[in-house]
Amino acid sequence: MNDAPLILVTNDDGIHAPGIRALIEEVLPFGRVLVVAPDKPQSAMGHAITIHSFLRLHSVDLLDGAEAWSCSGTPVDCVKLAIYKLLGGKRPDLLVSGINHGANISINVLYSGTMSAAVEGAMEGIPSVGFSLMDHSIEADFSQVRPVVRNVVGNVLKHGMQAGTCLNVNVPRNDGAPLKGIRVCRQARANWEDEFETRLDPGNKEYYWLRGEFRGHDQGEDTDVWAVDNRFVSIVPTQFDMTAHHAIAELNTWSHAVG
Amino acid sequence: MNDAPLILVTNDDGIHAPGIRALIEEVLPFGRVLVVAPDKPQSAMGHAITIHSFLRLHSVDLLDGAEAWSCSGTPVDCVKLAIYKLLGGKRPDLLVSGINHGANISINVLYSGTMSAAVEGAMEGIPSVGFSLMDHSIEADFSQVRPVVRNVVGNVLKHGMQAGTCLNVNVPRNDGAPLKGIRVCRQARANWEDEFETRLDPGNKEYYWLRGEFRGHDQGEDTDVWAVDNRFVSIVPTQFDMTAHHAIAELNTWSHAVG
Repeated sequence: MNDAPLILVTNDDGIHAPGIRALIEEVLPFGRVLVVAPDKPQSAMGHAITIHSFLRLHSVDLLDGAEAWSCSGTPVDCVKLAIYKLLGGKRPDLLVSGINHGANISINVLYSGTMSAAVEGAMEGIPSVGFSLMDHSIEADFSQVRPVVRNVVGNVLKHGMQAGTCLNVNVPRNDGAPLKGIRVCRQARANWEDEFETRLDPGNKEYYWLRGEFRGHDQGEDTDVWAVDNRFVSIVPTQFDMTAHHAIAELNTWSHAVG
Repeated sequence: MNDAPLILVTNDDGIHAPGIRALIEEVLPFGRVLVVAPDKPQSAMGHAITIHSFLRLHSVDLLDGAEAWSCSGTPVDCVKLAIYKLLGGKRPDLLVSGINHGANISINVLYSGTMSAAVEGAMEGIPSVGFSLMDHSIEADFSQVRPVVRNVVGNVLKHGMQAGTCLNVNVPRNDGAPLKGIRVCRQARANWEDEFETRLDPGNKEYYWLRGEFRGHDQGEDTDVWAVDNRFVSIVPTQFDMTAHHAIAELNTWSHAVG
């Protein structure tokens, strides 16, 4: 079993979320499994890492056949601790993150701890995939995600991944009908129209809760938003090079004389 | 003064860092200034937002002519609160973030709270710039950054910014010699070779401190790492579309039949 692929599993909903359990069950037949996941919910932590405090790891008895650790930090901390503490610098053959309880389509890739863990994997040269189900419920039904995980993991182990990229996989909520298939997409343009709900504490001081509404601004039928709206699974190849290469030429026409 | 540009200022080192004070001083002549910055250091918070707790804002008397608020959340929270709470949904004409005490070149754009605030600005359609000085010291010398801020802010207010992009500006540490100028660059390929320093708490339980070493993997002379290593200011146009567009064609050759 020692030449079986080593698969690192993480998430942002925390090690006790049903989604990571479903993911572990689906990847166990593909190889050896190491789980390092947050000890508490870390949704919307983006690419945050812990530099002003220390980190802890605790061994967890999670699922037969999987070595599992809970981590006091963020999803990206989990990836770093797995590689540089638990594996002594060795890279796993595959990193999978999720299955997230909730969508990570479009610009949510930037806020998502699930996807940031996959992006960190790509930065470390590890073929990495984030899986998300568009259902926030703790009782979300992952049955339609499971065969998607098997398909994508099989493909990634067979084909590898282009350097500097990872995959963002989003699966529509199970509405009882079969999914229409898988589409390779680009990240849709969108923003969050936010709102802050203002409340008064017992001392009559204001505090604010963030409540956002997702607003698509993209008519493309090649986007992840279009795909999931039309009951397809979306796969967006995602990279950590954030350079707007197309903007370089215009910026070079500016006057850069510093006086 | 009401048709002067409205400039939103934030950072990740906290509202009392010398870097944001230098930035405010340099942008005040360009327009009306609203400061919303974290009440404590928020370095390496990436694109994290606060969804499991509430947020606070406190009015701060910081610099004459600038309305200033400290925020209990992350840099991206600051941008959202500025737009959706303090400005009632109105977008400022410019967002500047920094001046960061420390470099945000290469892949650090993903970890950086300073740059994530600028990326959030771009998502909201606001011309946005993050400024960083490659000197972590609280006593860092910002004198060479100040004219860079004036140049870049002048350019952005004059030319605007391509949709979906912002700027990542890094200035070499002041070593006494003049800077060589400004270069428009791409984000260099690199990773962090991390190490976890293991310590024992008084109860003999292990805990870990993250200590990383930045490793460049890019020979290009068009990168931000090359520029700052050669005493140029680097400007990288940065986008929130993380799609690896070049990888889509290959992914479409995979078998996506879900069984």
